[in-house]
Amino acid sequence: MEKIIASIITIGDELLIGQVVDTNSAFISQELNKAGVWVKRRVAVGDSKEEIIRALNEESRDSNIILITGGLGPTADDITKPVLCEYFGGKLVMNEEVRKHLIYLFEQVYRRPIIERNLKQAEVPDVCTVLPNARGTAPGMWFEKNGKVFVSLPGVPHEMKGLMTAEVLPRLQQTFTMPFITHRTLLTVGMGESFIAERIKDWEEKLPAHLKLAYLPNYGMVRLRITGWSTDKTRLENELDTEFGKLKQLVQEWLVTDEDETLPMVLSKLLRSRKKTMATAESCTGGYMAHLITAISGASNIYKGSIISYDNEIKISALNVSPASLQKAGAVSEEVVKEMAAGALAKLNTDYAVAVSGIMGPDGGSPEKPVGTVWVAAGDRTKLVTHRFQFRFDRARNIEMTAIQALNLLRKFIVENA
Amino acid sequence: MEKIIASIITIGDELLIGQVVDTNSAFISQELNKAGVWVKRRVAVGDSKEEIIRALNEESRDSNIILITGGLGPTADDITKPVLCEYFGGKLVMNEEVRKHLIYLFEQVYRRPIIERNLKQAEVPDVCTVLPNARGTAPGMWFEKNGKVFVSLPGVPHEMKGLMTAEVLPRLQQTFTMPFITHRTLLTVGMGESFIAERIKDWEEKLPAHLKLAYLPNYGMVRLRITGWSTDKTRLENELDTEFGKLKQLVQEWLVTDEDETLPMVLSKLLRSRKKTMATAESCTGGYMAHLITAISGASNIYKGSIISYDNEIKISALNVSPASLQKAGAVSEEVVKEMAAGALAKLNTDYAVAVSGIMGPDGGSPEKPVGTVWVAAGDRTKLVTHRFQFRFDRARNIEMTAIQALNLLRKFIVENA
Repeated sequence: MEKIIASIITIGDELLIGQVVDTNSAFISQELNKAGVWVKRRVAVGDSKEEIIRALNEESRDSNIILITGGLGPTADDITKPVLCEYFGGKLVMNEEVRKHLIYLFEQVYRRPIIERNLKQAEVPDVCTVLPNARGTAPGMWFEKNGKVFVSLPGVPHEMKGLMTAEVLPRLQQTFTMPFITHRTLLTVGMGESFIAERIKDWEEKLPAHLKLAYLPNYGMVRLRITGWSTDKTRLENELDTEFGKLKQLVQEWLVTDEDETLPMVLSKLLRSRKKTMATAESCTGGYMAHLITAISGASNIYKGSIISYDNEIKISALNVSPASLQKAGAVSEEVVKEMAAGALAKLNTDYAVAVSGIMGPDGGSPEKPVGTVWVAAGDRTKLVTHRFQFRFDRARNIEMTAIQALNLLRKFIVENA
Repeated sequence: MEKIIASIITIGDELLIGQVVDTNSAFISQELNKAGVWVKRRVAVGDSKEEIIRALNEESRDSNIILITGGLGPTADDITKPVLCEYFGGKLVMNEEVRKHLIYLFEQVYRRPIIERNLKQAEVPDVCTVLPNARGTAPGMWFEKNGKVFVSLPGVPHEMKGLMTAEVLPRLQQTFTMPFITHRTLLTVGMGESFIAERIKDWEEKLPAHLKLAYLPNYGMVRLRITGWSTDKTRLENELDTEFGKLKQLVQEWLVTDEDETLPMVLSKLLRSRKKTMATAESCTGGYMAHLITAISGASNIYKGSIISYDNEIKISALNVSPASLQKAGAVSEEVVKEMAAGALAKLNTDYAVAVSGIMGPDGGSPEKPVGTVWVAAGDRTKLVTHRFQFRFDRARNIEMTAIQALNLLRKFIVENA
């Protein structure tokens, strides 16, 4: 069986001047990969006819599927639709269903008058299959040429996602006979990429060629993913289970989960399975820990709230931190984070709490407590554990690192003190 | 004067399976653009010799500068360095300075034993200029061939950023005579892209060819950017000032700032200039508003803290919301957000507060209050304004939209009630 190969073309000057980060390509790659399609290249080009055509020509040389996003908006800089129409030798015609959907959106949902510019979005090339976009104005378009499939999707992420799931993936599965690609993923916290690589070297070298290991480090975490590719599903699954079992043994001491989950997801599941609740008391992370937890649907079952005591006054008034501790040890100290955690447990009435205080930079450091110094306390009413971390580099990264390490300290506490 | 054109090549299988979002390309594009370099294409390829070489050949056809990131790690899947070495006809040699830096990092900073695999990172092609990486282990590499510059940087974002700023940009400015590219950017909140396009259509059509307008919509905001390109700096600046003045007039009612800033930055500056403080009381946004404010360095001057009352019990105990209001109107109601804002002003002792409560989905909706229903209250001790929003679609987007609209309601309140 031949590999089904895809290229992704993202269109838009905003990508080339760097004013937006392309999150669409990652989503599309993930979905294609899961479906058994091998993404070979991703290309971003500007809103230029010449560049779009060059990319279409080059990417369709090796790839069976060319997924295109962006440039379908109602404004003058959006030229993807007329360029595709010309490329596939069609002409633009009004599509009645898209027109009705546009009128519905403006009248019932946006409650704004519809203007000529918007109605133009209902014009589509007569050589494509129209993919209805329930979430927005620009429809998707499916073209076929010389056995290759070209799909054009809007660049707005939630519209693109809706179209991928509802229209593109089912149609691709009908059009191509997919091979079987599958993954096993685990997450470690607390050890660097090269040290892990050294630990698992002997095992990795013996992996058969159709199994591939990827290291995905991110903010103090390393995700390890084995990808397998085969036509024999049962054999591949068995083989992956065996190798994944060996890998888990090798990295056991840093293992957080053997599923493709984030650390906040692991912590949420752990609390849910034990019917327990948690709270956060945040100084330097300024709400980011709370955000990581509440971004997960159903958080209200396990999460009651947070006191973000950015100002010391709030540490005293809302978390019962003693002015004497603040005076003596300073806001970034073991004493203060312990009092913050105890205050959160009492005030927010939860089973567990985690508290952080630190210096995120670029200002505020001192010789004894340089930028990146963080104290964390986690625990329950009977016991609190603490840890001092020393991070480096920039503010955004320090906030991320602190939130992840603090949530991991609470996770470990719960697992070890069950 | 000729345009200086660049391509960005990002290397790594993790980009093609979609496990990481490429934020590096946006940063590099921004920096090159500011320096007067036109980014023409961005390409992502896997850790494959054939694909890397194809990308190097194709991208160096039109571009003067080829910026390469990724694939420089210590693990077996990282092959960028040997491939570049071969491509430019060199051989790998140990670099004494890089070796010393590696030993310093492991001994003094990471405090972990250095292993052979790490020391290999000090081997560099003898045909490149080594760019020292103060923030990490893999050095940058600068190659020149047929008048083109190829720069290879590590994929770790803060290492890449450090190298771009300290090494790459100054060297590019020495190597090429840059044209002058400049921008004017403004931010609007509260009106859609196509409606704005209609309003400014006549003005936009009359723009000279060397000035280009971009629409950059994002979560209820639309950023408008005019980019100008010329060799005559003074004339271009004057021209841009004139056109930018006209544009600002046209979109005045939705204008948040005429600088290249985010909404949280605008709100922070506003508070700082008036020496005032704010607090947040968050239910559905779960700390995300607080995070947006505290992600900005120096937030402690204007931000005291937040009560994240995810659970109704906390709304009562920590924010003085009356059980009767919760009972009668429900947690997502005008009454409750007003009481939350009043509670935050009192408990956190600030000049201003903003409170939100809503249903972010996918669960929790009802016919009267569907998913996406949000109440916001903002104001000070003498007056509170409220607004009901109705968002749609997914949870992550609803959290973003709510935080932005709520912060904007507070910003407008401050401006209008000075």
